[in-house]
Amino acid sequence: MRISARNQLKGKVVDLKEGAVNSKVTIELPGGERITSIITIESVKELGLEVGKDAFAIVKASNVMIGVDE
Amino acid sequence: MRISARNQLKGKVVDLKEGAVNSKVTIELPGGERITSIITIESVKELGLEVGKDAFAIVKASNVMIGVDE
Amino acid sequence: MRISARNQLKGKVVDLKEGAVNSKVTIELPGGERITSIITIESVKELGLEVGKDAFAIVKASNVMIGVDE
Amino acid sequence: MRISARNQLKGKVVDLKEGAVNSKVTIELPGGERITSIITIESVKELGLEVGKDAFAIVKASNVMIGVDE
Amino acid sequence: MRISARNQLKGKVVDLKEGAVNSKVTIELPGGERITSIITIESVKELGLEVGKDAFAIVKASNVMIGVDE
Amino acid sequence: MRISARNQLKGKVVDLKEGAVNSKVTIELPGGERITSIITIESVKELGLEVGKDAFAIVKASNVMIGVDE
Repeated sequence: MRISARNQLKGKVVDLKEGAVNSKVTIELPGGERITSIITIESVKELGLEVGKDAFAIVKASNVMIGVDE
Repeated sequence: MRISARNQLKGKVVDLKEGAVNSKVTIELPGGERITSIITIESVKELGLEVGKDAFAIVKASNVMIGVDE
Repeated sequence: MRISARNQLKGKVVDLKEGAVNSKVTIELPGGERITSIITIESVKELGLEVGKDAFAIVKASNVMIGVDE
Repeated sequence: MRISARNQLKGKVVDLKEGAVNSKVTIELPGGERITSIITIESVKELGLEVGKDAFAIVKASNVMIGVDE
Repeated sequence: MRISARNQLKGKVVDLKEGAVNSKVTIELPGGERITSIITIESVKELGLEVGKDAFAIVKASNVMIGVDE
Repeated sequence: MRISARNQLKGKVVDLKEGAVNSKVTIELPGGERITSIITIESVKELGLEVGKDAFAIVKASNVMIGVDE
């Protein structure tokens, strides 16, 4: 499937932490930046996520804010 | 101000497009990835955003999804 | 690509309205319910959306609220 | 109360799973589609949600993405 | 309808600005704080929003971030 | 850092509840309104949040809905 979300950043899963309904998934981009995601534990299972696996961090443009140093 | 959002990626503004209430802002990360953001036109003015300016793309972890190639 | 979003509802595009930076896309599900989406005009072009085309309405579970009749 | 959210889909609660701060609520639409929601455990209590109860899945249009089969 | 969103702040509409697909609505709380919302132009019409009208600003808890002064 | 989010409401932390991956943080505004936020437990630690501390509730305008009494 192709999806409308403007931001689809390729990286690798470097950390996974499971809660009762949600899991925290950390993706590392090739440049070394890390992106943290909170998704359901069902999603982690269905996508077969595990440390070392290639994955995309996907963000809808309307959910990106901008900051500047003061 | 420091903010709870887990994802604060530093880059440069490389494109700006203004609509009636929202603007589209594109940030390029050092690794070359581009991140697209939709924010209000007031925010663009208040932050003094313009092409070439350093800026952060900021995303709350609960707004990041994960994708995998099939 | 497979994506973590829990809600991926299949339907058909029944309306498109374009603004300066965003477009409104309406999807009709087989049961007749209509789902409205606001995405960027670039997304509409890249996905080749037009009235009559099959498409999915995709929503992350953390963006779904629940309501009850009083 | 009437609310601006464009998407208010009527269905029935078919599953509830409680975590420490969030709960997962699954709504089934008349056409059989299921919608998963993550809300706080306080919301589940205040709305009196339980399996079999009528409820609406509510989504703001800016939180709906579009996908197409490749 | 009662809705799961944890944050439902009562105030008055003090400004409205219409774009092509979205409108910006500003609500003033009794304490004087102002809250800005971006909703579709259809929502503005359906709710009959106009300056001076009582209205609630509604936010799902998972969409609230926290900041602290450095 | 200055951030694009239109809504930055100053108050005090009045409640904290920790889960496995997320925490619930409640902010009270000067006018007495309370705002509930769900953020990661890492964010709570990094910002040094505790009951009584000054803090801002921050919300992007596109995540604010409007409601009216029927």
